[in-house]
Amino acid sequence: MEERTFLCENIGVNGEGHLTFAGQDTVQLAARYGTPLYLMDEDRVRDRCRVYADAFRDLFPAGSRPLYASKASAFREIFRIMAEEGMGIDVVSAGEIHTAVTAGFDMSRAFFHSNNKTDEDIRYAMDCGVGFFVADNEEEILALEAEAARRGTVQKVLLRLTPGIDPHTYEAVDTGRVDSKFGAAIETGQAEAFTAMTLRQEHIRLEGFHCHVGSMVFWEDVYERAAAVMLRFMADVRDRYGYTAGILDLGGGYGVRYVDADGHLDIREKLKELSASIRETCRQLSFPAPAILMEPGRSIVADAGMTLYTCGTVKKIPGYKNYVSVDGGMTDNPRFALYGSKYTVYAAGKMNEDTPLRCTVAGRCCESGDVIQENVPMPADVGRGDIIAVCTTGAYNYSMASNYNRIPRPPVVMLRQGESRIAVRRETLEDLTALDV
Amino acid sequence: MEERTFLCENIGVNGEGHLTFAGQDTVQLAARYGTPLYLMDEDRVRDRCRVYADAFRDLFPAGSRPLYASKASAFREIFRIMAEEGMGIDVVSAGEIHTAVTAGFDMSRAFFHSNNKTDEDIRYAMDCGVGFFVADNEEEILALEAEAARRGTVQKVLLRLTPGIDPHTYEAVDTGRVDSKFGAAIETGQAEAFTAMTLRQEHIRLEGFHCHVGSMVFWEDVYERAAAVMLRFMADVRDRYGYTAGILDLGGGYGVRYVDADGHLDIREKLKELSASIRETCRQLSFPAPAILMEPGRSIVADAGMTLYTCGTVKKIPGYKNYVSVDGGMTDNPRFALYGSKYTVYAAGKMNEDTPLRCTVAGRCCESGDVIQENVPMPADVGRGDIIAVCTTGAYNYSMASNYNRIPRPPVVMLRQGESRIAVRRETLEDLTALDV
Repeated sequence: MEERTFLCENIGVNGEGHLTFAGQDTVQLAARYGTPLYLMDEDRVRDRCRVYADAFRDLFPAGSRPLYASKASAFREIFRIMAEEGMGIDVVSAGEIHTAVTAGFDMSRAFFHSNNKTDEDIRYAMDCGVGFFVADNEEEILALEAEAARRGTVQKVLLRLTPGIDPHTYEAVDTGRVDSKFGAAIETGQAEAFTAMTLRQEHIRLEGFHCHVGSMVFWEDVYERAAAVMLRFMADVRDRYGYTAGILDLGGGYGVRYVDADGHLDIREKLKELSASIRETCRQLSFPAPAILMEPGRSIVADAGMTLYTCGTVKKIPGYKNYVSVDGGMTDNPRFALYGSKYTVYAAGKMNEDTPLRCTVAGRCCESGDVIQENVPMPADVGRGDIIAVCTTGAYNYSMASNYNRIPRPPVVMLRQGESRIAVRRETLEDLTALDV
Repeated sequence: MEERTFLCENIGVNGEGHLTFAGQDTVQLAARYGTPLYLMDEDRVRDRCRVYADAFRDLFPAGSRPLYASKASAFREIFRIMAEEGMGIDVVSAGEIHTAVTAGFDMSRAFFHSNNKTDEDIRYAMDCGVGFFVADNEEEILALEAEAARRGTVQKVLLRLTPGIDPHTYEAVDTGRVDSKFGAAIETGQAEAFTAMTLRQEHIRLEGFHCHVGSMVFWEDVYERAAAVMLRFMADVRDRYGYTAGILDLGGGYGVRYVDADGHLDIREKLKELSASIRETCRQLSFPAPAILMEPGRSIVADAGMTLYTCGTVKKIPGYKNYVSVDGGMTDNPRFALYGSKYTVYAAGKMNEDTPLRCTVAGRCCESGDVIQENVPMPADVGRGDIIAVCTTGAYNYSMASNYNRIPRPPVVMLRQGESRIAVRRETLEDLTALDV
C-alpha cells in the first residue's frame, strides 16, 4: 500500500480513517472541545523555535537571535513557550506588550515595532521595560527622546529602513519597497537623514538597523540582497558619521507549506547560505560582522496550527458549484477573503474515502465573500455533522479573528505529547456584550 | 462665499474651521473620548428608520415592514433604537439574538438568517422566541421540524431562494445569483423541491419567501426584477401546490453615499416605483399582493457613522507617495483591505485649509495592506496630532472590527440633539487577555 504524505509531519491518518494532528484524533478533539476549534501543536512550535535558535547560535556572530513575530499569533501561552525556548519577540502594540508581560516574558528581549506609536504606547512600553524600539520615523524619534529625557534614561533603538527590494511575494506582505508606509528609504536619502537626526539625540542609543522584505520567502535570495543593501548603507554611515552599527535585523521569515505544491525548505541550510553571503559582503566592505536578527512568525507557528469545523449543509447546484458550509469562516480565518490565500482542507472523519466532489468550503457569515477555500476535493457523502479540517492555520488566524456577524471566537487548544489543554477559552455570548452599555 | 456641500446633511464645518458631525465639533469629541473613536448620529439613524417605515406603511399591504439588518452594526443601543422606532430586525447568529434580547427587543419581530444554523443555534433562537426562521436549506428544515416537534410548537419560516438576478454591484455583496452559498435556486428547480419538502412538515408553517439581490442598490431596477421572478415563482407554487404565500422578503437596501460621486437617492420615491411594479406584476399573475419586507442595514446606519483617528506621522517619499498614518486602521475598518471600498476623509481640525497633498491614509497595523483610503486630499501641514475623520463608517466597521495586532477596539459614542454618550465602551488591554489561561 502506498504511503500517504501530508503537508507537514504532524499530520496523519489513524486506523479509524480519522485525520490526526500531533498524533491526536481530530474527530475526538472536535467532540471534546466543540467546533470551531483552533488546535496548536506545541511540539511543532518548539521544534521550529529550536531550528531557528540553533542556526542563529551556530552560524551568526554573538548577540544574533530569532525574534518571534507576535502578530502571527499572540496569546499568553505562546509567550510562555517563547520564554522557555529563549526566543526574543517582536511586538507591534501595547496589547501585544501587555500579553507578553502578563505571561512573564522578559521584555529586555522585546523589540517594539509599528509605523505609528502613540505617546501613550511609548510610555507604556518604557514602563514595561521593552528593550528595543524599532523606530519608524523622525516624529517617533523625537517622542522617544522626549520621554527618555523625562525619565533620565537612554533608550536603545533600531531604525527601520526600506532597502527597495522586491521580494516576489504578494503585495500585502511586500514591505521592503521604497513605496511603503514603513520606515525610511535608502534610495531617497531619507534613511541617511533619519540616521543623522537619531545620532544627534542625547537619550537615544542607536544599536543598528532593521528592514523587512516580506514573509513567505522560499527560494529567492531576498535576504542576501537585502543584507547587501543594508550593509552597504551601514558602511556608508560609518564612513560619514563615524558610527558603526552592531545589529542588523532582517525581519521576515521563511515560507511554510499551505498546499502540496509549496516547496519543502531546509531553514538551517538557507540560513547557512545567508550567513556565508553576509560574511562575504562584510569582508568586501571591511565592515565588522553585525549581530543578525530575524523575525519569523508564520514560520514558527503556521504549520503548528489546524482549525476544525462542523459541516452544516452541502449545497449542490447543478451546472454551477458545490458548497460545503461550516460553522466558522472569515470571522476566524479572513485570509481567503483578504488575500485569496490557499489552504489544504479535509473531511477529517472520512480520510480513507475517495474525494470526487469539488467544493467551495464556505463560512457561516451572511456575506458571499465568506469563503475558506475553493475547489476542495471532498468525499461524495460529505454532509451535516462531518468534521472539516483546515491545515496550516497557526498564523494570522486567531490573531486576525473578528466578531463579524456577532460570532464568538473559537478557543485555542494546545496539543503536546498526547495531551491537550485550553490556552484561550471559547468566547461566550455574554463576552460579546461585555462592553455594551 | 460659496456654500460647501458635504456627503450627508449631518456633516458641516463650524466657525473654528472644525469638522462637525450631527452638529457637534469632532475635534472636541476626539479630545473628550480619545481616538480611535466611532461616532453614531442617533437622530440620523432614527430618521432613516422613519423614511423606510413610513414608506412601507403607506405604500405596501398590511404586514409590510422594514427589518434592520443587524449585521451592519449590532450593539444593544442600536436594538433599543430599533425597538422604539417599531422596526423589525434581521439577525444572523446567536450572538446577534443575544444582543437584541438583552436590549429588550421583542423577538417576535426578528427574522433569523444564516446559511448554516447549528442545532444549538436553532434551540437558542426558539428559546428566545425568535418569530421567523429564514430557512436556507433542507437540512435546516429537517432540524427545525425536529426541534419544533420536540417542543410541540409550530415554527414560522420563510424560505431563502436565489432568483438569479445580477445586481450590478460588486461580488462580495452579490448574493442573488444562482451560484451562491445562500438559498435554493429557482432556475434549477431546487427552490420548488425545497418548497415542496417544507410544505410536507407538520411543525413548520411556511409564511413566504426571501431573496437577497445585493445591497448598495442605486438606480438599477433590481428589486423590481427580483420581485417579478419571486412572484412568478409564488404563483407557480400556488398553482401546483395550492399554497399561497403571504410574505415576500426582498432583502437588501438602497445605496448610501461614500464619496461625492455617489448619487443622491430618494428612498421613498424608489419604494413608490417598487410598489407600483409589484402591484402590476400581481395583477398580471392574479396573485394577491403579499406583505413586503426589506432588510436595510447599511442604508439605516452607514451615513450615521463617522470614525475619528489621530495622525501619528506623515511620510513624504519623493517620487512615490505620501503616507498619513493614523492610530487605527484595518482593525476597526477592514473594508478597504477586503473590498477596496471608497471613503471620504478629512483633516477635521483644518477644514478651511487648502488640500494640495495627495495622501494614502494608512493604519497602524504591521501590514502593508492596512490602508483606509488612497489619494486623499490633505492640507500641506497635516501632521502628528491632527484629527483625521472618515465619513460613512456606520455600517460594517464596528461590526467587522478585529483585535489584529492585539489592538483594542474603539468605543461607540452616540450623538443626539447636541449631547453625546457612550454606547459601547473602549476595549482595554485587560479585556484583550480576558480569555487567556
